[in-house]
Amino acid sequence: MTVNQDTITSTSGVDNGVNVEALLGARDALADAPEIAQFQWRSTVSWVNGTHSRAAVKTFYGFCEEQRHSKSFSFDMDHPLQFASHDNGITPAEVVLVALGGCLTAGIAAVAQQRGIQLRSVLATVSGEMDLHGILGADPQVRNGFGGVAVHYVIDADATTEEIEALVAQSQKRSAVYDILTNPTSVTVDVA
Amino acid sequence: MTVNQDTITSTSGVDNGVNVEALLGARDALADAPEIAQFQWRSTVSWVNGTHSRAAVKTFYGFCEEQRHSKSFSFDMDHPLQFASHDNGITPAEVVLVALGGCLTAGIAAVAQQRGIQLRSVLATVSGEMDLHGILGADPQVRNGFGGVAVHYVIDADATTEEIEALVAQSQKRSAVYDILTNPTSVTVDVA
Repeated sequence: MTVNQDTITSTSGVDNGVNVEALLGARDALADAPEIAQFQWRSTVSWVNGTHSRAAVKTFYGFCEEQRHSKSFSFDMDHPLQFASHDNGITPAEVVLVALGGCLTAGIAAVAQQRGIQLRSVLATVSGEMDLHGILGADPQVRNGFGGVAVHYVIDADATTEEIEALVAQSQKRSAVYDILTNPTSVTVDVA
Repeated sequence: MTVNQDTITSTSGVDNGVNVEALLGARDALADAPEIAQFQWRSTVSWVNGTHSRAAVKTFYGFCEEQRHSKSFSFDMDHPLQFASHDNGITPAEVVLVALGGCLTAGIAAVAQQRGIQLRSVLATVSGEMDLHGILGADPQVRNGFGGVAVHYVIDADATTEEIEALVAQSQKRSAVYDILTNPTSVTVDVA
């Protein structure tokens, strides 16, 4: 979920499958109607059993009205067998890494389209270090989350190494999930 | 991915499907071999087309050796039709909400098991506010990520309201993803 703010240069013959004109049109529309930019993303998560839960994603709010995905998406999460659990899905920590890789990769495609760079392949290897002393409550000095996260890209594109590095840098600059990881967000949790 | 540090009280007859003994055993084992707690979680994310990418999760590192999930998990991400995209999956921002709900919910089950509280149902409604002026590059004062996130729980359990509130609070205290959202994490991004 990343759109950069460059002007379109030359995109003749380049097709990364991103409708940059529509995205730039949306940005232009904000000048007259800034309220259309207020979005709310949602998920409902139901406990199944043990550490197994199932998330559904169907609706969101934006462009001043209720919106729907074209279908309801469902995701199972669990802890692995090595944690005496059942591995019915990946762990929530891994889900965060999935989100980060997806956000930066979509951004690279959007920026490449704007810059007239044809992509052939983009592969991100995302890893997050975690010291379980945190979540196991064994050491109050150790955080529950990642000690650090690394993303390594291998990109095949019709561009120089410097141009490819600039694509990745611009994607980072406009990435929602990169921001969510690197900066604090207020989270409230309550029970009805 | 949450384990609390209470001692086991009474769990007779209570079965939330969490093997608390194994988790406490793991924590005890850390005293003799702290290096087993160093984990690395991973995902590889491949660009498909446009804003559509596909993540795979298969291996991780922990307990001093390479580990595998029982299968390779795959997740599609995309932008919705309303963004002139193809809705082949949920957005990465929504994936973050999925992770948060999954992490807190697994924690509630684990804490409930330790405290001898039988859960009947747990449902989290997770929402994240986002002002698109950020990711569209329309206003440098607006962040790319969430302005704020809210999690509302409805829990049916064999416990008082106060006990249920305490379950949720303890899950928050030990949640990896809650920590990842509320505190900054170092993220490095490079291109091979």
